[in-house]
Amino acid sequence: MATPFRAIPAIPSGNEYYNAKAKELNERMEAQIPAGLRLSKDILDSLPVNVMQIPETCGLLSENELAITELDATALCAKIAKGELTAVETVTAYGKRAAIAHQLVHCLVDFFLEDGLARAKELDQYFAREGKVVGPLHGLPVSIKEQTPVKGKLGSAGFLSTVEFSAEDSLMVKILRDLVFYVKTNQPQSIMHLESVSFHGRSLNPYNTNLTCGGSSGGEAALLAMKGSPIGVGNDGGGSIRDPCAKCGLWGLRPTSLTMPQGDYYHYEMGNDGIIPSTGPMCRSARDINFFISAVRSTKPHLVEPLLIPLPWSIPDKLERKLRVGIMMNDGEVVPQPPMMRALKLAKSKLEASGEVEVLEYIPYQHKAGYDIIRELYFEDGGATVRRVLEEGGEDILPLTEWVISPPHTRDHTISEAWDLRYRRDKYRQAYSDYWNASDCDVVLCPPFPGTACPHDMARYWGYTAIWNLLDYPGVVFPSGIKLDPRVDVAYESNQPLSEPDKYFRDFYDAEYMVGAPVNLQLVSRRFNDCMLMAAQKIVEKIILS
Amino acid sequence: MATPFRAIPAIPSGNEYYNAKAKELNERMEAQIPAGLRLSKDILDSLPVNVMQIPETCGLLSENELAITELDATALCAKIAKGELTAVETVTAYGKRAAIAHQLVHCLVDFFLEDGLARAKELDQYFAREGKVVGPLHGLPVSIKEQTPVKGKLGSAGFLSTVEFSAEDSLMVKILRDLVFYVKTNQPQSIMHLESVSFHGRSLNPYNTNLTCGGSSGGEAALLAMKGSPIGVGNDGGGSIRDPCAKCGLWGLRPTSLTMPQGDYYHYEMGNDGIIPSTGPMCRSARDINFFISAVRSTKPHLVEPLLIPLPWSIPDKLERKLRVGIMMNDGEVVPQPPMMRALKLAKSKLEASGEVEVLEYIPYQHKAGYDIIRELYFEDGGATVRRVLEEGGEDILPLTEWVISPPHTRDHTISEAWDLRYRRDKYRQAYSDYWNASDCDVVLCPPFPGTACPHDMARYWGYTAIWNLLDYPGVVFPSGIKLDPRVDVAYESNQPLSEPDKYFRDFYDAEYMVGAPVNLQLVSRRFNDCMLMAAQKIVEKIILS
Repeated sequence: MATPFRAIPAIPSGNEYYNAKAKELNERMEAQIPAGLRLSKDILDSLPVNVMQIPETCGLLSENELAITELDATALCAKIAKGELTAVETVTAYGKRAAIAHQLVHCLVDFFLEDGLARAKELDQYFAREGKVVGPLHGLPVSIKEQTPVKGKLGSAGFLSTVEFSAEDSLMVKILRDLVFYVKTNQPQSIMHLESVSFHGRSLNPYNTNLTCGGSSGGEAALLAMKGSPIGVGNDGGGSIRDPCAKCGLWGLRPTSLTMPQGDYYHYEMGNDGIIPSTGPMCRSARDINFFISAVRSTKPHLVEPLLIPLPWSIPDKLERKLRVGIMMNDGEVVPQPPMMRALKLAKSKLEASGEVEVLEYIPYQHKAGYDIIRELYFEDGGATVRRVLEEGGEDILPLTEWVISPPHTRDHTISEAWDLRYRRDKYRQAYSDYWNASDCDVVLCPPFPGTACPHDMARYWGYTAIWNLLDYPGVVFPSGIKLDPRVDVAYESNQPLSEPDKYFRDFYDAEYMVGAPVNLQLVSRRFNDCMLMAAQKIVEKIILS
Repeated sequence: MATPFRAIPAIPSGNEYYNAKAKELNERMEAQIPAGLRLSKDILDSLPVNVMQIPETCGLLSENELAITELDATALCAKIAKGELTAVETVTAYGKRAAIAHQLVHCLVDFFLEDGLARAKELDQYFAREGKVVGPLHGLPVSIKEQTPVKGKLGSAGFLSTVEFSAEDSLMVKILRDLVFYVKTNQPQSIMHLESVSFHGRSLNPYNTNLTCGGSSGGEAALLAMKGSPIGVGNDGGGSIRDPCAKCGLWGLRPTSLTMPQGDYYHYEMGNDGIIPSTGPMCRSARDINFFISAVRSTKPHLVEPLLIPLPWSIPDKLERKLRVGIMMNDGEVVPQPPMMRALKLAKSKLEASGEVEVLEYIPYQHKAGYDIIRELYFEDGGATVRRVLEEGGEDILPLTEWVISPPHTRDHTISEAWDLRYRRDKYRQAYSDYWNASDCDVVLCPPFPGTACPHDMARYWGYTAIWNLLDYPGVVFPSGIKLDPRVDVAYESNQPLSEPDKYFRDFYDAEYMVGAPVNLQLVSRRFNDCMLMAAQKIVEKIILS
């Protein structure tokens, strides 16, 4: 493998205005880290590639704080509801750990622990006075992606020209006001990379800082993996929840679109409705997904945001039949790198051995054609808006932005061409639905990406996540139980690339350099089958991790 | 009032190819009417303006056939299920009455009673053999709009160049195969008039043939009003179910979109998804709406057509609170003509007097702005596709087609302009939702049109129906209990037009000419509230018709 990307690339540059503004935002962010939470020069000067242990070893967190930050959201809320933990203790522990995490993986864009503590105090007072919690999420700290407006905090649509202090909470944030906000997290330029590098800087993968934490909700994932947050909110139009969760060893669900609030998030292509992204939780356990979505859905957000669909949320205890799991070893376009292939095979053998599920081979239906359609849909204007918004901020275009808006996938359309494109989308959806029905699978287990986290700026294939966005099939990612191990994840089975992108992934694969990257899997089901999917995920996870 | 439109305009013309083809289709249709079902020259030469009684007086139907055709779908199916009526008897009666109706109001485009009888015979044999029906709709005749493909029968997208014998059943028709098909019904050029005149000819209002039967599902409505069908299937993107039902004194629901199958209907703007139409039943009773939708939804069409939303269908017996009915006397743009105003006031006073509901005044929220948005959305290409498809068939453009695609409402858009338009749509939806919530109405009672059925080619305002399409609010129309009466529906209350369209409606209003037109009302509720809406409609109808 060539070495150029081994050095972590500098943060994006631009003209004088841009450079000054980006510097100011970075300095503001760094100044928000309290002096007492700064990592020592000794630690920072000799960072290992894997920084996961530093919060425990740096000496800045008490044993109690470390114990609190080990808990998932469900456990935290249970303890708070029983009075075993206060909201102030909880947010203090997470706030401190988030500050440490940021110094290691550059995951934050705004830090406001004081606000969080003030809110936590109110909640503790309520609990002391009333003897009960305000709601199921009482006192839980939650991290929020920059794209999601939190009143008075930094928000943007992924370009410097769009950054502002938000005038209002988004509906999602209003719903979550029982929780405690304390950070906003980083996302990439354009919010359209499986990587997270922006005018705020570059977020890193804590398991191996040579690697990306994924994107676009990558700041979230890096923070969650460092246990600087128990739960976060991401938004996924091509993989933006699932990709970073997968690359950082987390759990994340992209629900069927328009079932969770997101109408007032930052966007630069307002009104582009060819592909609708979807908001969902990024978590440290599968049960936290249910915990979070149940709480949000119970507020009936569709009564406030009229584009939302009032689909009930209730995960069944028992499935209607023995679960039928299709396994897709590759998408016909890019063969997964060795650690992903190992995880798939291990999962397959465990599922087969369990006797608890039916295992089928799932052959993908024309995924390349679908991927071509969604890439064309993202920027029906040929990327003109992206270039304009960059220009307005004096911001240089990043390589992954250039890639994602480049021909042949991206081109300007007339109305008639745009209608034709959307018609092709709908015909593909219909053909896929027919195919899926004929396959008789309940869920499909597949890679979320053609490998683990890759080195920075290399994530030039979205097919494993974006295809399900095109279909609007819900997808959940979760750890496979293994990490990239250079001793075993040595080589591809065959030397025959399926395509140019496949060759590209083979060429940069380097087990030594990518050591320790978590390997996650993805489970998908048909549209609106979110609850069945989560029931199936529980079964599959239990078997795979057993 | 000026007189030019008193003569029913000729059917649309075109070039030599078009004229020959239209003539061929018309002759084919006329030849399908069996000799024994032809109305006598005497009758045809002295037709009254109101032709509603002719099926009873023409002597072509037996007493039993007349009795069968008096029943609504629910009653028919109950009798068939009890063995009191056979499918053959039922479809015979309806087929005969449909043939008679066609000669009076020109509602059909294809007639295949023999197919219907063959299917009815199969169903009767099944019933005789098994002692039960195949499903809740067993043996019910159903009329189908031309736009909805029925295998082997004529279908089109509203232009001669698109007419064909359909290669396959649409999903809706597949689902309805327990029913008996025997006719396809007329729709207007472009399927975008509140009128039904096409290369098949012009459909008339049976209550007053000087008037339109409405559109675009106008052939359905004319046939149903004549009791030539117990139930029909329409499709509504701007009023196309509600308008003809209202103009012909019927019941019709436009459900929330994407809850009923329609993905494979004929369209000429394939992929234009700025406004999604919605399929629903056109009926002769409110209960038939529930009867039909329950049956269709129970087949889980969303598993076959992936764009559909799996919303449960169950009309509540009891509402959560005393029903709050907002009454909208006008939309701020066009004041209803005198009979519609009389119906609204009568309804208001009865609802107030009943004590069963809370009556509120509903002031519309910027309906003109919304109407401007939806008109712009219909033809984002400036009508270029319409002109191309007309050209391909050598078909002259009709005045109402010209009107609907004309500037300033219609113009070509760049992608960026189209995104902006869709963003304005979504912002309007959000603002309306906020306004609706603040109004605290459960349902709004309003006109479905600024009057009763109007003279032919005059329906140049869609605001009362299309606004709810823009919002995707379900709407049901139903008879108010009154008809236009020149003795009382004499004059407007004030002489101050609100707008140009208002002046237009005042100018052509002529109580003598429009005598006998049924006056329907419309009830709407917020998106996805279809079941509550139908529960509310039952309450409101009971009070209004009491």
